[in-house]
Amino acid sequence: MSLAERVLAGDRLALARLLTQIENEELEGLNALAALYSLTGGAHLVGITGAPGTGKSTLVNRLAKHLRRTVEVVDGTAATVAVVAVDPSSPFTGGAILGDRIRMRDLAGDTGIFIRSMASRGALGGLARATAGVVQALDAAGFDIILIETVGAGQAEVDIARTAHTTVVISAPGMGDEVQAIKAGILEIADLLVVNKADLPSAENTLRALRSMLETAYTARSTTYPQARGKRSKPSQEEKEAWLPPVLATIATTGEGVPELSAAISRHRAYLIDSGDWRVRERERIQNEMASLLREYLALRFLAQQPEGRYEEAIERVVTRQVSPRKAIEAIIEGGADTS
Amino acid sequence: MSLAERVLAGDRLALARLLTQIENEELEGLNALAALYSLTGGAHLVGITGAPGTGKSTLVNRLAKHLRRTVEVVDGTAATVAVVAVDPSSPFTGGAILGDRIRMRDLAGDTGIFIRSMASRGALGGLARATAGVVQALDAAGFDIILIETVGAGQAEVDIARTAHTTVVISAPGMGDEVQAIKAGILEIADLLVVNKADLPSAENTLRALRSMLETAYTARSTTYPQARGKRSKPSQEEKEAWLPPVLATIATTGEGVPELSAAISRHRAYLIDSGDWRVRERERIQNEMASLLREYLALRFLAQQPEGRYEEAIERVVTRQVSPRKAIEAIIEGGADTS
Repeated sequence: MSLAERVLAGDRLALARLLTQIENEELEGLNALAALYSLTGGAHLVGITGAPGTGKSTLVNRLAKHLRRTVEVVDGTAATVAVVAVDPSSPFTGGAILGDRIRMRDLAGDTGIFIRSMASRGALGGLARATAGVVQALDAAGFDIILIETVGAGQAEVDIARTAHTTVVISAPGMGDEVQAIKAGILEIADLLVVNKADLPSAENTLRALRSMLETAYTARSTTYPQARGKRSKPSQEEKEAWLPPVLATIATTGEGVPELSAAISRHRAYLIDSGDWRVRERERIQNEMASLLREYLALRFLAQQPEGRYEEAIERVVTRQVSPRKAIEAIIEGGADTS
Repeated sequence: MSLAERVLAGDRLALARLLTQIENEELEGLNALAALYSLTGGAHLVGITGAPGTGKSTLVNRLAKHLRRTVEVVDGTAATVAVVAVDPSSPFTGGAILGDRIRMRDLAGDTGIFIRSMASRGALGGLARATAGVVQALDAAGFDIILIETVGAGQAEVDIARTAHTTVVISAPGMGDEVQAIKAGILEIADLLVVNKADLPSAENTLRALRSMLETAYTARSTTYPQARGKRSKPSQEEKEAWLPPVLATIATTGEGVPELSAAISRHRAYLIDSGDWRVRERERIQNEMASLLREYLALRFLAQQPEGRYEEAIERVVTRQVSPRKAIEAIIEGGADTS
């Protein structure tokens, strides 16, 4: 059996191997992924992001277990759940190992839940591309719900979370969360907002602040500034009922609020399908992925075609300030790119 | 006078206009930047990063003022300081306006300090490229020290901060900072660590934790695992004195610790020059910038050469799951890229 066939037969070891090959951009894995691609599109992709220290991993574990227990797919069987934990922890040495083991142990014994950690590998676009591939493989392998967890609230994490159908942003009480919320622009990407550690004394304040900011933002947006709705266009008030992101309180350590979060995620899925936004987001995701792949392939092909040392020479001329980076690139592209 | 000449003559309005043109990738600005490029290389680039809520902006303002007052350049005049505040706040609507005004007011009245805020514009690589251009323009315009402040501790922010000669990572007591520090891999990129809000009760713990982690990391690195020193190779123990990142305590609101931070930054500059790392980092920065520009230019040129609708057709075939993203890109590149 080929690797792809073994994955489809439910072989978890084969799946783990495929994911590693995709991460490392090995040809065998990429070809298997291409063969599997026609089977993708069934999974509900849920991006979960938030600053470190918000208890995100614990909450994701709880959520995975709850979704597995309560969500049914069309044929009445329990939904299978995959967790992709994207960890930009050790951009320089690779890692995400310890956390992975702890989580594995926590969720072990159920083949309907699958966990995969991914560490950033330095290159900015590389992690997003690898994540896309891993998610596709899990989708093709038949997982019904894929939770894509990213640590941090920077641009890269937001971009990765944004590739999902449903984006959940987690915060915790204290440490200027309200400011943080505005800063990271999360109001514009969150489909669901969660305040974890809701048993902390200041949780009420955080919940209230987030709710009032959301209301202000959505009122302003749908009345005064309809053009400012951002790239991922929300449905306009006239056409259909808009989705107002709910603000939920959870306590990951006890599991409080997890059923409500789980239900809200299912509700958002139904909303996406009814409103047509599901297809809009799918298309955006594919466009982003293809743009990234195009850049990567063109650069690799171009550099392979360069005469030995030509690109290094161009770098040298920039280092010695003879020419600016842009002019150097323009010169090298225009002066010999089409020799193939 | 050309825009570049006006910038060199010290015209601040011309400089602001140039920076806007660079941000918007307008041809006039990019050409002016190319003309100015030979004048770059004099500035000390200091990247400052850290999670939201650490009081980073206040500290950077204080630091800018202090550097301006105390650092002298070769001819004995006071160093000029530019601040580039990279704010991924509103990835979808653009922003960074309010904070900019507040800071402007704070630092107004001294033409030797210049502030520029930059908002993320969606595209992942775009902000890093624009930041590089803006920093080059300020460098050519004669600023002696350029502080590049990024909000957040995600991969994108780290990458931007890392393009500097000296990288300062700011944290604050509480909220699992120790974990955060490990998570973000900052031990591997920080040349200086700062614990701001050092008047908070738990500051001592945070300082101690960071110091002990650093010691462990550096001891392990220079003895047992010399090969694990990461991409930006620190000088080995044998060749020259290594730089052990100092952990400093500051209170931005009162200015406490700012003189020490300022001195440490100057000390790191001297270290870089003595050890030869200055040139190593310059080259890495230029290589990264050129790789990003190469990808961008190749993609633009390629898409411009495509027959109308061909790329969109490829996207459509991926959306309908007839072909995987990778295979679609391979097909489009191999089947007609070289018609120019």
